[in-house]
Amino acid sequence: MFDIVAPLDKVSQEFVDALQEKIDLKTKPQGSLGLLESVAFKVGLLQQTLTPNFNHPSVVIFAADHGVAEEGVSLFPQVVTEQMVLNFLQGGAAINCFSKQHNIDLKIVNAGVKANFEHIQADNFINQPITLGTENFAQHAAMTDQQCEAAIAQGAEVVLQQHKAGCNVIGFGEMGIANTTSAAAIMSALLSLSGQQCAGKGTGITDQTVLLKAQVIDQAIQKYQLHDANALTVLQKVGGLEIAMMVGAMLKAAELSMLVLVDGFIASSAALVASEINENFLQYTQFCHQSDEQAHKLLLTNMQATPLLNLGMRLGEGSGVAVAYPLLVSALAFLNEMASFNDAGVSDSSQ
Amino acid sequence: MFDIVAPLDKVSQEFVDALQEKIDLKTKPQGSLGLLESVAFKVGLLQQTLTPNFNHPSVVIFAADHGVAEEGVSLFPQVVTEQMVLNFLQGGAAINCFSKQHNIDLKIVNAGVKANFEHIQADNFINQPITLGTENFAQHAAMTDQQCEAAIAQGAEVVLQQHKAGCNVIGFGEMGIANTTSAAAIMSALLSLSGQQCAGKGTGITDQTVLLKAQVIDQAIQKYQLHDANALTVLQKVGGLEIAMMVGAMLKAAELSMLVLVDGFIASSAALVASEINENFLQYTQFCHQSDEQAHKLLLTNMQATPLLNLGMRLGEGSGVAVAYPLLVSALAFLNEMASFNDAGVSDSSQ
Repeated sequence: MFDIVAPLDKVSQEFVDALQEKIDLKTKPQGSLGLLESVAFKVGLLQQTLTPNFNHPSVVIFAADHGVAEEGVSLFPQVVTEQMVLNFLQGGAAINCFSKQHNIDLKIVNAGVKANFEHIQADNFINQPITLGTENFAQHAAMTDQQCEAAIAQGAEVVLQQHKAGCNVIGFGEMGIANTTSAAAIMSALLSLSGQQCAGKGTGITDQTVLLKAQVIDQAIQKYQLHDANALTVLQKVGGLEIAMMVGAMLKAAELSMLVLVDGFIASSAALVASEINENFLQYTQFCHQSDEQAHKLLLTNMQATPLLNLGMRLGEGSGVAVAYPLLVSALAFLNEMASFNDAGVSDSSQ
Repeated sequence: MFDIVAPLDKVSQEFVDALQEKIDLKTKPQGSLGLLESVAFKVGLLQQTLTPNFNHPSVVIFAADHGVAEEGVSLFPQVVTEQMVLNFLQGGAAINCFSKQHNIDLKIVNAGVKANFEHIQADNFINQPITLGTENFAQHAAMTDQQCEAAIAQGAEVVLQQHKAGCNVIGFGEMGIANTTSAAAIMSALLSLSGQQCAGKGTGITDQTVLLKAQVIDQAIQKYQLHDANALTVLQKVGGLEIAMMVGAMLKAAELSMLVLVDGFIASSAALVASEINENFLQYTQFCHQSDEQAHKLLLTNMQATPLLNLGMRLGEGSGVAVAYPLLVSALAFLNEMASFNDAGVSDSSQ
């Protein structure tokens, strides 16, 4: 379904050296802009230019419901998924504030919320649910093969449309009551970790509910024999419709050489699946925020990802992407606008 | 010289509760915006309103030379201080890019650079050097009492002018070859730590030069008997003209109930001095970035400060303030613009 994207450093050594030299000759001690230098380098490689830029920055929120909510793994009732979609459409959520602040184009996709949105007409709303929520994976596979494939394809299609609109930097958010359980199950299966290592407090559940969540995960891994399964099988058995759409969206974005901005824990579980499907995928990503969700740190470590922020947030919705976006812009600003030692007549270090 | 500012929480309990409630009733799990919630709370308290805002955000860079550069503690020649001031004025430095990106008003103050800037005319340049660089504190006190006081007063005056222009949020940057040695000496004296605990690699010196730097610090602390000295004496003996101006600027900003944005290691050493002079000062601050300079983490821990960013930067110039500024704006955006559970018809958690 997707082309395997090329590794980013498969450009000429001459270009790689020129890019690094451009960064190093700016009027600052070498390396003193830290992660901003890594971002500038990555985006330069990705766009294969010494003067990269961002166009039409976008965040897409995929929303869906999870049958596993029946197990009592969340603090909020399932109807909150629908209510939050309406809140996104009315502009009242955190991601609305942050997207507006940074002129980020925000799209909301109904990937499979247990609700009827047929009456909603909004330019930024894509209402194409695969089905009205997944099955409870404690009982049955979350999705059928066909549903999972359709969700992946639909996520890819959304990205294609954003790309056609000129977008070259895109982040993905999600909304779905109980979706940390689904993300933790994916992590558990693909990294061979216990439910307890992957389950966290989500929206703020008690320690006892975290244990229940871990148990639900362990049992599902056992039930579907997922420790040896491939990423697509894991996604289908314990994933979510919004997570599957994110996987498709991420892979398509990399294929189109867009920079993929990864939000928090759930988006990272999608990135993990994408990286299993496409071995070079992670080179096209920038992780934006280390969530307060306890397993996120371990998940990031496993993907050797260094997020830009660690603000103790745990909200999803793409909020980590949106608040981190200006840092990415700063990275390109220094690369494109700062004077070099030569330009400015500043002495380089004495060594 | 400065009024002792009131502790921030000396407002009515009713107001404190109303502010916290406003934050908690936004459509998100409680606490899920992490540090952004702390920032919103702090700025609300500081401005004593449920709808705080930022006006005329400013960064002031104080530049000065340091006699202690003679000891060979820096990688760059001293002339770079002058050259970088010119670079700031020509718009070629990192802080220029980042200030422009966020519409931050940038002022450059010659606090005491070893150079003649009389030919420079620029609206954003304040050319009022106290003297042409400090003495080498390995030999003599860095400043006289009078010079130190004049620098503090001058820093305060700059802030007063920004306040008159409508500014209520201000950060301070610095430029001065060898000024990490001065900052580390201040830290060593005020926190009773060894030179080695406080000296770092600055712009990128070798491990051997770090040891030399530590030795210079230890000897100065001994020479001036600074382990029992008060903050002003420490500042005068081993400080810098730009650090002294930052101390005055920070204290005046707090007195005027402005939010003080603290940059990296050197700015933090000024904040440490300010906090010794005024016990409530730190309540008016937001630390913006944990520098890669090794002692900064320890310095922040001592001030119980949680910086917004940790990007591995070590540049100074107020760069950490400028790149962090949009996060502060995000904090006020969510407080002022997000819907509450009631507004949006979203169900609160089931507990």
